[in-house]
Amino acid sequence: MSYTIGIDYGSNSVRAIIVRTSDGAEVGTSIFDYPSGHQGILLDPNDHNLARQHPGDYLAGVESTVAAALAEAESNDAGFSRAQVVGMGVDSTGSSPIPVDANNHPLALKDEFKGNLAAQCWLWKDHTSIEEAETITRLAGEHRPQYLAKIGGIYSSEWFWAKIWKCLKVDPTVFDAAHSWVELCDFIPATLAGVTDPAAVIRGVCAAGHKALYAEDWDGLPDKEFLSLLDPKLADLRDRLYDEAHDASATAGHLCPEWASKWNLPEGIPIAVGEFDVHYGAIGCGVEQGTLVKVIGTSTCDCGVVSAEEEVADIPGICGIVKGAILPGYYGIEAGQSAVGDIFKWWVEGVCKGSDSLHKELSDEAAQLTPGQSGLLALDWNNGNRTILVDQRLTGALLGQTLYTTQAEIYRALIEATAFGARAIIERLKEYKVPITRIVCSGGIAEKNAMLMQIYADVTGCEMRVSRSSQSCALGSAIAAAVIAGAHPDFASAKEAMTGLKEVTYTPNPENQKVYDQLYALYRQLHDAFGGVSDQVDLGNVMKDLLNLKHA
Amino acid sequence: MSYTIGIDYGSNSVRAIIVRTSDGAEVGTSIFDYPSGHQGILLDPNDHNLARQHPGDYLAGVESTVAAALAEAESNDAGFSRAQVVGMGVDSTGSSPIPVDANNHPLALKDEFKGNLAAQCWLWKDHTSIEEAETITRLAGEHRPQYLAKIGGIYSSEWFWAKIWKCLKVDPTVFDAAHSWVELCDFIPATLAGVTDPAAVIRGVCAAGHKALYAEDWDGLPDKEFLSLLDPKLADLRDRLYDEAHDASATAGHLCPEWASKWNLPEGIPIAVGEFDVHYGAIGCGVEQGTLVKVIGTSTCDCGVVSAEEEVADIPGICGIVKGAILPGYYGIEAGQSAVGDIFKWWVEGVCKGSDSLHKELSDEAAQLTPGQSGLLALDWNNGNRTILVDQRLTGALLGQTLYTTQAEIYRALIEATAFGARAIIERLKEYKVPITRIVCSGGIAEKNAMLMQIYADVTGCEMRVSRSSQSCALGSAIAAAVIAGAHPDFASAKEAMTGLKEVTYTPNPENQKVYDQLYALYRQLHDAFGGVSDQVDLGNVMKDLLNLKHA
Repeated sequence: MSYTIGIDYGSNSVRAIIVRTSDGAEVGTSIFDYPSGHQGILLDPNDHNLARQHPGDYLAGVESTVAAALAEAESNDAGFSRAQVVGMGVDSTGSSPIPVDANNHPLALKDEFKGNLAAQCWLWKDHTSIEEAETITRLAGEHRPQYLAKIGGIYSSEWFWAKIWKCLKVDPTVFDAAHSWVELCDFIPATLAGVTDPAAVIRGVCAAGHKALYAEDWDGLPDKEFLSLLDPKLADLRDRLYDEAHDASATAGHLCPEWASKWNLPEGIPIAVGEFDVHYGAIGCGVEQGTLVKVIGTSTCDCGVVSAEEEVADIPGICGIVKGAILPGYYGIEAGQSAVGDIFKWWVEGVCKGSDSLHKELSDEAAQLTPGQSGLLALDWNNGNRTILVDQRLTGALLGQTLYTTQAEIYRALIEATAFGARAIIERLKEYKVPITRIVCSGGIAEKNAMLMQIYADVTGCEMRVSRSSQSCALGSAIAAAVIAGAHPDFASAKEAMTGLKEVTYTPNPENQKVYDQLYALYRQLHDAFGGVSDQVDLGNVMKDLLNLKHA
Repeated sequence: MSYTIGIDYGSNSVRAIIVRTSDGAEVGTSIFDYPSGHQGILLDPNDHNLARQHPGDYLAGVESTVAAALAEAESNDAGFSRAQVVGMGVDSTGSSPIPVDANNHPLALKDEFKGNLAAQCWLWKDHTSIEEAETITRLAGEHRPQYLAKIGGIYSSEWFWAKIWKCLKVDPTVFDAAHSWVELCDFIPATLAGVTDPAAVIRGVCAAGHKALYAEDWDGLPDKEFLSLLDPKLADLRDRLYDEAHDASATAGHLCPEWASKWNLPEGIPIAVGEFDVHYGAIGCGVEQGTLVKVIGTSTCDCGVVSAEEEVADIPGICGIVKGAILPGYYGIEAGQSAVGDIFKWWVEGVCKGSDSLHKELSDEAAQLTPGQSGLLALDWNNGNRTILVDQRLTGALLGQTLYTTQAEIYRALIEATAFGARAIIERLKEYKVPITRIVCSGGIAEKNAMLMQIYADVTGCEMRVSRSSQSCALGSAIAAAVIAGAHPDFASAKEAMTGLKEVTYTPNPENQKVYDQLYALYRQLHDAFGGVSDQVDLGNVMKDLLNLKHA
């Protein structure tokens, strides 16, 4: 009997679970809310694009959650002992790069940078580097078009180089003090392994390939000549980053004595290479060729895999196609929506000033409505559009209000808008021959909100299933740990043993599908007009002009 | 010393004021909330277009308010006595036609039609007859284009013929039982004068010209041949309506003994011809050539006058140009927005679940914002667009939401949207050479919401003033009564003596104007695209398709 630990860094908290490798049973779990900022996020009231996190929260969090999860495993499972823990795996949000010194120590933890927003972790949803991302896209288009082909054509402000460049511009002192930058999903395994040299940090190809323009085709990271076009200091930084990135068949390191003793775990157990939450989440949901995994949370990520032995076309507007990013031996394909749960939270908590009970109340009321009944249509762009427009400078829209429009009608329209956004992604993937025969969802929203799941089924026309584990990301990390520890010979057999689906199946309702097909056509009309990608109708200036006025 | 009584029927209540004719002092006032339905309006939860009122509320209301206003005058003003009351005037919302029997008795007051929605007063904002209005527009375009030229090109579902035709379709029993139909503003003067024959009701040209296609140019109401194209029964009805309509220089009748004794007023005092609330409101605000009067309430009406000796072009999209409709000797020009206060009320009370204190709170917070700061832009179409698109099948829109957008930001965006709508009207009037050198506003919103007034000044670029009277409509009615009673020789001298402005002046802020000019350009881009009147961008199908789905 053996166990592994999966650690999942989300946007507001970190979770740890203890998993039995034979059957995937989760025998202990714990969650730690980041104490800093607003719900764990450091904000700037003058700039809604800024979102940072304090690295100290990550370290306090992992220490606390793993300890608590282990204690719970001991109390839940008589068969469990700490000596049976054979490995650990870590996933996190991303791209969430952290500036570190030459000892792999985050600058934010040093007195001189205390409270400095530029020295913190630049959380995935930080959109301050919109200009930098646009310039990278333009320069790559002119000088290295091959870079863009792998990332859907547009470099995002949510990504590694844009953020670091922005730091160089707004706070060169922090940039100069940073010996290197490490993604959160790489930083935690290295820290647990006691790595004190950034050059020795084992970097995952998931973050490297999806966010840092890393690819075998051009020998790793972007070349220095290209980086010099951005800023010579970024070319210099390349030397202090990494030459090689690894898929989940590699080991990031082994648990160092210091951390082993904190938890009374065996020293030297292997730690899996870090991946982004949704990538390990896809593994936790049992991803395989033909399955699209949707991890529905504050935002949504859609993950698919295609065998590395097949040809995969570049897909415009898709976040990335990276060999080895999810499963070793496969191309990992990632798409996503910049906000899903965050939009509902904004509506219910931010505007309607409600809490969980109002979420429930509006859900119940909205469930009584039929498709089209409210006369409303929304765009799900309150946090920009990640796929398929790849444009952070887009904003939300709501259309069709009368003098009698209710909170619940708007709530449902927002859910429908996210479903239309999901359909736009699915249609794009299918258009480029990525097979999708079933959709497996994960995340609290998928588990709790049957109305949402049915709407997604009706809008997409796909059968929707829910992952058995409510901690798919952490479970995927634990599965990777089980494979590198040898508890399973490969990911396929680990999937078979350790993952599963809930019984509930959401089947498209043909009547609703008919109405939603019409609403989706209207959604695409607005989507293309305001997204600036329509041949007939161009309203692409409107949201941009509003944002320009906002920032003027 | 003499006094007149002004009676003003609004959407939710009726007011009466006692006015001293020498200086316009309002020495007594009273308000009566209609007891029936929701805030005085009979609704149908299955059809948000339906809005009716119970005629019994009108009669109970006038009896009560006039009595209370007289009592207050006696207690306020030692110089006042009922014997000094020399006349009465009445205004009301419209087009609000009431089906009556051969004795001028509302059908709704008869047992057989009790509670029948079709037998009630069809309130101005009832939009159930959208199809009928569209057909009238089409048929007039084909057979009587001259009819459309006077009403801005489009017959509205808010108007007389469309409503009566709709009644014929949905409840022919009510239609057949109706000997005639009388506008509320004509019905009340006739009732107070003891008129018991609909043919003897003196009809105002204001309602007749603006809503019933009445004009001297074609000898009154639409001819029977045209009405037969709608339905032969409407042609028959024409014989039981009226041949002539009158401006405010005419007398509607004289106070009958029955009503005089209820109030202990002199029998036989003259009652002015009824006009719509905003038309008498324009007089109460001191309208004259060059002044645009905006009565800002649940909806907004904009009124101007141009001497009947000048040429006035037909103005597309303007509700009407009717000789004598406001001031005798002038063309009355009416435009308006289908919802203004109603939109703020919807947002604060309907969506945010607040009350007056939240209106205040959001106003204070919104006042701290600068133009453009929220990044939001809205269309003020929650109740359709009366001017300049004349299209009830338009709906609201909000654009630019982020995950941090607040209640107050949306509140301000909605205010700005109504200001942009106001500007669209002003620009259309100026384009057709209607002189506008000052804007005088009336209504509670204009008096109380300095932020809104400043935004209107900044958006329109016009100096905004506020009428001295907070009951401009009732005051205008009282002024008309003063003129027909001979207390003043004409409206010009009555205006001089009885009207005035508050001291406060809202002057456009050049900095804000610059930003609002840019926002207005974006508003017009959306306005024209969704309104279906843009040469470049046509999104005119979107709101219509949503409404079709809603009603499917």
